[in-house]
Amino acid sequence: MAQGDVKLIGAWPSPFVLRARIALNVKSVDYEFLQEQFGAKSQLLLESNPVYKKIPVLIHESKPICESLIIVEYIDEVWSSGPSILPTDPYDRAVARFWAVYIDDKWFPAMKGLATAKGDEERKALVEQVGEGLGLLEEAYVKSSKGKAFFGGDEIGYLDIAFGSFLGWIRATEKMGGVELIDEANTPGLVKWAESFSSNPAVKDVLPETDKLVEFAKILQAKHSGSS
Amino acid sequence: MAQGDVKLIGAWPSPFVLRARIALNVKSVDYEFLQEQFGAKSQLLLESNPVYKKIPVLIHESKPICESLIIVEYIDEVWSSGPSILPTDPYDRAVARFWAVYIDDKWFPAMKGLATAKGDEERKALVEQVGEGLGLLEEAYVKSSKGKAFFGGDEIGYLDIAFGSFLGWIRATEKMGGVELIDEANTPGLVKWAESFSSNPAVKDVLPETDKLVEFAKILQAKHSGSS
Repeated sequence: MAQGDVKLIGAWPSPFVLRARIALNVKSVDYEFLQEQFGAKSQLLLESNPVYKKIPVLIHESKPICESLIIVEYIDEVWSSGPSILPTDPYDRAVARFWAVYIDDKWFPAMKGLATAKGDEERKALVEQVGEGLGLLEEAYVKSSKGKAFFGGDEIGYLDIAFGSFLGWIRATEKMGGVELIDEANTPGLVKWAESFSSNPAVKDVLPETDKLVEFAKILQAKHSGSS
Repeated sequence: MAQGDVKLIGAWPSPFVLRARIALNVKSVDYEFLQEQFGAKSQLLLESNPVYKKIPVLIHESKPICESLIIVEYIDEVWSSGPSILPTDPYDRAVARFWAVYIDDKWFPAMKGLATAKGDEERKALVEQVGEGLGLLEEAYVKSSKGKAFFGGDEIGYLDIAFGSFLGWIRATEKMGGVELIDEANTPGLVKWAESFSSNPAVKDVLPETDKLVEFAKILQAKHSGSS
């Protein structure tokens, strides 16, 4: 398959960058991974994403594509000879897109807030909010997987990538906060899904290790609090 | 074309609902328009969009599809025999999706803020922000239309619908606030585009009249300030 010149501007801890990496792996596309230095933005990033100046940016044949979910759709459309990432049925596609947007707009902000929550009350409210979201995603999983391993059925698909990109950070958050977010009691389907997802060939070599993320989070927190 | 049973839960002043209506018109799909009463949510809406409880919801063969941009893509995929709404080239599709997300996440919040801005300073900052966004969209229009009438070329496409759905509200905001947002001096391309868009057969009968929107906005403002 003539794949052309493919570069990805990113950073290993970013769940959004991970989406692009997994999608490229699903399609067996080789790419050059250009990692940004934390706290500095490269000239290439500033030129490639002048509106947001944010990673990830996929550069394909010198053309930049921004926004992680848009990148995943682009990869699916360009390398259409590989396994399909989006479901083929328009309704299933709409459902997968709906939950992906939900994750980014509603669920992730609560999840992100957990790391910097001040006081027990704020923390408790956020854990509840994150849990509610996971409850909805559990339902969506049971409904759309129809007993198979992934949201998309037998193969990793769009919603698996959109949600699974956070799996490392979910585990890191559980470890740091002493909470269980995905567990047998509340989200037994997602427990099974998380196992299948993290051991999948397109994922296992790029999903960051929990301990490395915890370490990275501690460095970040120390920087924010001005103690390092 | 067997189109099946199509209903749209919406309300006439909503730009997001308008997106679905224009997309259905582009594909010549007949639908039942179920208008929500302002300030009350119907049982059908609550059941069809339990996560957000928001319009628009497209109901096709009893299946609900939520989120306006997802609805537009769904319409494009299901009624694929009509004119294509998304560009066919994957890169052009990514660019159109990028600007659509930009409009919803960055530009519209500033535009919406204008209506309730307190004081001259906040107002001025918002007018500037809205203007900057329109400047970016002017550039995007010049680049992607290649001298043709629409962002998508000769025919109305995804980004035309995503942005054009706000045209009525842009005009109402100009009228209420005594400002020019889309004008010959700063956005000559968008002036031309706005003319083509509002006179297009898929748009002209559903684009709300500026005066009706101004009247609606005044009622809203009066309600918010508690004077009615």
